[in-house]
Amino acid sequence: MSESRGPGRRPGRRPGVSDTRGQILTAARTIFAEKGFDKATIRGIARAAGVDPALVHHYFDTKEGVFIAAMRVPFDPAVIVPLLLNGPREEMGERLVRFILTVTADPQAREPVLALIRTAVTNEQAVAMIREFMTDALLGRAAAALGIPMLRMEAAFAQMFGMLMARYILRLEPMASADPEELIALVAPAIQRYVAP
Amino acid sequence: MSESRGPGRRPGRRPGVSDTRGQILTAARTIFAEKGFDKATIRGIARAAGVDPALVHHYFDTKEGVFIAAMRVPFDPAVIVPLLLNGPREEMGERLVRFILTVTADPQAREPVLALIRTAVTNEQAVAMIREFMTDALLGRAAAALGIPMLRMEAAFAQMFGMLMARYILRLEPMASADPEELIALVAPAIQRYVAP
Repeated sequence: MSESRGPGRRPGRRPGVSDTRGQILTAARTIFAEKGFDKATIRGIARAAGVDPALVHHYFDTKEGVFIAAMRVPFDPAVIVPLLLNGPREEMGERLVRFILTVTADPQAREPVLALIRTAVTNEQAVAMIREFMTDALLGRAAAALGIPMLRMEAAFAQMFGMLMARYILRLEPMASADPEELIALVAPAIQRYVAP
Repeated sequence: MSESRGPGRRPGRRPGVSDTRGQILTAARTIFAEKGFDKATIRGIARAAGVDPALVHHYFDTKEGVFIAAMRVPFDPAVIVPLLLNGPREEMGERLVRFILTVTADPQAREPVLALIRTAVTNEQAVAMIREFMTDALLGRAAAALGIPMLRMEAAFAQMFGMLMARYILRLEPMASADPEELIALVAPAIQRYVAP
């Protein structure tokens, strides 16, 4: 991910056209995380990105298009599947938990994950879209690559999803401020059992 | 829990006064599950229960009061802590997962859990209330009773919470239609590891 200027920067410094797409996605992550899918608008995203709404439509067509592009980044199967497979099989659980905690440690990278959770929980229409993406692109591909039943992949997902909920949304203590290494030591064996039985 | 008449029943059959409180709670579970905390109203809950809004205020004072009373049922620490402790320690994980899946198998009993999740994810004000309840009354008491660190109790909670999300909110297949016994066999060992190390 390239660095981007926050929407609060002085309007005089305009980014190059080639940055515009990334800038819209950065703004979209913030807006979706704050408002969820339903209440977010193309107009609001454009405003936060400092661009014309027509440009958002040009790059992503619809709000759904922006959402899919914005949410794919941290869960990219093209990143996660090789991450699982490259390295010792007995450390797969640890690699996966470390990856998830590392990605979400950065508040800006965490935003799309929280946006995804908020949307999944509150929006019936979006949940179908998210379920399709999760099942086909992410969990299905990972389960196939590992040669494990889908239910095991989903149990592993449930553990990590619940951990993110407890840490970043419910902010339960001591989970919310726990050192990542302590969490990895605690949770990785459960993931390992699911993904490499 | 006593049986209650659905809001759709003929208005001629009025329940006894002693049922009114239970009837309001049943209606509240439905309304909170459908709308979340923010959009639910005392008036809407009263309407669904077929009672005067003044009666809802009389029993529960505020919307928060209704919510706390309604959400306490399936997560009652007075039920969960003895359940964990009564029986062999090596089957604790299994007892806990079976209890959670049995309670949530009934759509009516599941509603408060889903209401809780929707509210926690979307309402900043309610999340503080839920966090307090979770930490002090539920997880804190369970961790103390088991003599384990709070972080372990929260990891177990995260696993079960994520499982309920995947099964009932995201409705990922095959998790959504999996036989409870298959899920128990898969998930209970992870819970066991957390709560009885």
